[in-house]
Amino acid sequence: MKHGGDWTAYLEEYGRLPLDFSANVSPLGIPARVREAAVKALDAADRYPDPECRALRKKLSLYHGIGEERIVCGNGAADLIYRLCRCIKPEHAVLAAPGFAEYEKALSAAGSTVETLLLQPETGFRTNRSLVRLVRGGTGLVFLGNPNNPTGVLTEREELLELLSACRRTDSVLAVDECFMDFVEEPARFSLSGLLEDWPELVVLKAFTKSWAMAGLRLGYALCGSEALAEALAEEGQPWPVSLPAQAAGIAALDEQDYLCTLRKLIAVERRRMREELTALGLRVVPGEANFLLFYSEERALSDKLRERGILLRDCSSFKGLEQGWFRTAVRTEAENGALLRALREVLKHG
Amino acid sequence: MKHGGDWTAYLEEYGRLPLDFSANVSPLGIPARVREAAVKALDAADRYPDPECRALRKKLSLYHGIGEERIVCGNGAADLIYRLCRCIKPEHAVLAAPGFAEYEKALSAAGSTVETLLLQPETGFRTNRSLVRLVRGGTGLVFLGNPNNPTGVLTEREELLELLSACRRTDSVLAVDECFMDFVEEPARFSLSGLLEDWPELVVLKAFTKSWAMAGLRLGYALCGSEALAEALAEEGQPWPVSLPAQAAGIAALDEQDYLCTLRKLIAVERRRMREELTALGLRVVPGEANFLLFYSEERALSDKLRERGILLRDCSSFKGLEQGWFRTAVRTEAENGALLRALREVLKHG
Repeated sequence: MKHGGDWTAYLEEYGRLPLDFSANVSPLGIPARVREAAVKALDAADRYPDPECRALRKKLSLYHGIGEERIVCGNGAADLIYRLCRCIKPEHAVLAAPGFAEYEKALSAAGSTVETLLLQPETGFRTNRSLVRLVRGGTGLVFLGNPNNPTGVLTEREELLELLSACRRTDSVLAVDECFMDFVEEPARFSLSGLLEDWPELVVLKAFTKSWAMAGLRLGYALCGSEALAEALAEEGQPWPVSLPAQAAGIAALDEQDYLCTLRKLIAVERRRMREELTALGLRVVPGEANFLLFYSEERALSDKLRERGILLRDCSSFKGLEQGWFRTAVRTEAENGALLRALREVLKHG
Repeated sequence: MKHGGDWTAYLEEYGRLPLDFSANVSPLGIPARVREAAVKALDAADRYPDPECRALRKKLSLYHGIGEERIVCGNGAADLIYRLCRCIKPEHAVLAAPGFAEYEKALSAAGSTVETLLLQPETGFRTNRSLVRLVRGGTGLVFLGNPNNPTGVLTEREELLELLSACRRTDSVLAVDECFMDFVEEPARFSLSGLLEDWPELVVLKAFTKSWAMAGLRLGYALCGSEALAEALAEEGQPWPVSLPAQAAGIAALDEQDYLCTLRKLIAVERRRMREELTALGLRVVPGEANFLLFYSEERALSDKLRERGILLRDCSSFKGLEQGWFRTAVRTEAENGALLRALREVLKHG
C-alpha cells in the first residue's frame, strides 16, 4: 500500500512541488537550531554513527524521566515497528482497523496471524473497550495508535490500563504508538510514558519525524517497560540504524519546547476551524484530536481532483476498514488550510 | 560483536577524538559538493524521503549501466545484508571466515544454518576454489567480500564464475560484497557488476559509506541479477529506509570521479608503504588490496596500548577464524599513517 507524502511522484509528473496535506508532519518546518545541529553533524560525516545512540538516549532519558536502558532509537518509528515484530515474533497479534498499515505488514513479515477489530464510523471509530476482548492466550502483541491514524481518535487511559491488564494475563506486549501525541491538546492526560516502570508489557513508540518536521531525517524511538525487550530490540538488525545527522538533530530538538507549544496551539485552533469548515461543506468529519482529520465525501475522486490543483490529500480507501470516499487531510498553517478549503469548495461545487 | 569506528566510547572516556584506524573509510573526508548536497536536502527535512529512491536509482543506473529495476538502496550496506537474508530465508548458507560479522548475524536472525570455510593464514586467507565445494542442494545464499574484510584479499573472477555456476545448479544466490572495491587498483578487473544481466543468481553489494567518507549518512545499495529478487528486497521492511540527505549525497557523490581517482592512487601508494613498514617492524602482514591491512603481532595488547596513545586499531580476535594477535589497520593519509607507524614503533620497542 502507498503512503501519504509521496511528493516525488507529483514532482516528476508536474515539475513542481505540491501543497502536501497527505503527510502528517508539523507545518512549521524543522526548527532552525535542529537543522543547524544536523548540518554541523555533517562535518563528521566520515565517522560511523554511534550504534548505541548514547548521547541521544541520555537526553531522552532526562526528557521522559525513564532510564536509558529502556530507550531504543531507530531509523524512524517504522523501523522500530518492524524490529519489534521480529523480536517478539508473536503467533497471533491484535490490531484495530483502520490503523497504520505498517503494523500488519510488519506482523505478516514476522509470520504472525493478525486478528482485527473493525472500528465503526457509527461509533466514531472508537475502540469502546472491544479490543481487550480479542486479547487471549497466544496473543503476543497488540498495536494501537494513540491518537490513532488515520482517525485521530484518542483512547482513554482507563481503557488502555484494562488492555495492559489483559496483556499481563496473557503474556502479551501492548505497543502504543504515540507518534502523534505531541499534537494533542492534553498529551499528559493520554500518554502512557509515565507507566513504563510498572508495566513491562508496555512499549510506547515515538517519532521526531512529525513533531519537529524532520521526516526526511528519519528518527524514532521506543520506550520499553521491559529492559530485556529493550535489549533485544537494540540488538535486532544492523548495528548502525540511526544516521549521525538524525542523532544530532534529535538531541537539539528536545530543547525546542517553545516550538512544540506554538505548534500545539496552532494545531488546536486550526483543527477546530477545519473541522467546522469541512462540516459546513457537507463533509462527514471524524472528531479527531491529532494534526489530521479523517472525513467522508460522496465525491470519490476528490484526491485526484485536488491533485490537479496542486494539492495532495490522502485517499484512505486503501486502509482496511475504510471504503471509497474516506480521505485524510493534514492540519497545517492558517494560510495553507485556507488554500485547501478554497480548492475543496471549488471541487465540491463544480464537481 | 563490536565493530571498528566506535569513536564515541573513546570520546566519552578521554574527552577528545581519536585518530581512527579501526574504521575503513576514505581518509579524504566527504567531498565538499557531497556535503553541500546533503545540507541543501535539509531544507526539505519536513518531507518524507522518496521511498523508492527514484532519482538516486536513476543515476546509479547510468553509473553502472544496469536497469533501475535491478537496483535497491538501503540504510547502509548492512541494512541490505539483513534484508537480503530475510527475503531469501535460506535453509543453509555458506560463508568464508574471517569475514564481515554481520553476514552470520543476519543469517542467524533469518533462521539459517551457516557453513563456514575457514580461511588459513598459511595460504594467505585465499578461498582457493574451496568455497564452491560447500555449495550444495539446500544452500540458499553465499556471502563473500571482494575484497574480503578483514583480510583485504581479492578473489579472481574465474573462481567467482565457478561459484556462480554452482549457485545456478543449486538454486542459490551469491552475494558479493564489493563495498571496498573502489579502493582496489583495478576494480574493473575484479568487480562482477558487469555480469548481472547474465546471472540472476548474483547480487553485488555496494556502499557510499566507505568510498566517499559518508559512513555517518548511511547509504548502500544492492545490484541484483534477478529483477524479482530486487523487487522483493525493495518491499522488505519499512517504506522509508534511506534518509533525504543520504539520497541527495549519493546523487552528488556519483559525480565525484576525480575524488575516487585521487583516493585510489593515495591508497595504492600508502598501502604499499604501510605494508613494507609494518613488515619491517617484524609484523606478519597479509597482502591485502583494499584500504586496510590485516597483520599479526606477538604483542596481544597492541590495540589497548595504541588506544592510550589516541589511536584506534581494530583488534580482530573477535572475528571467527582469527585468534588473539590479529589486528586490522585502515590505510589513511601519509601524515596519519606516519603517526600510526611511529606509535607502533614505540609500543613494539618498549612493550
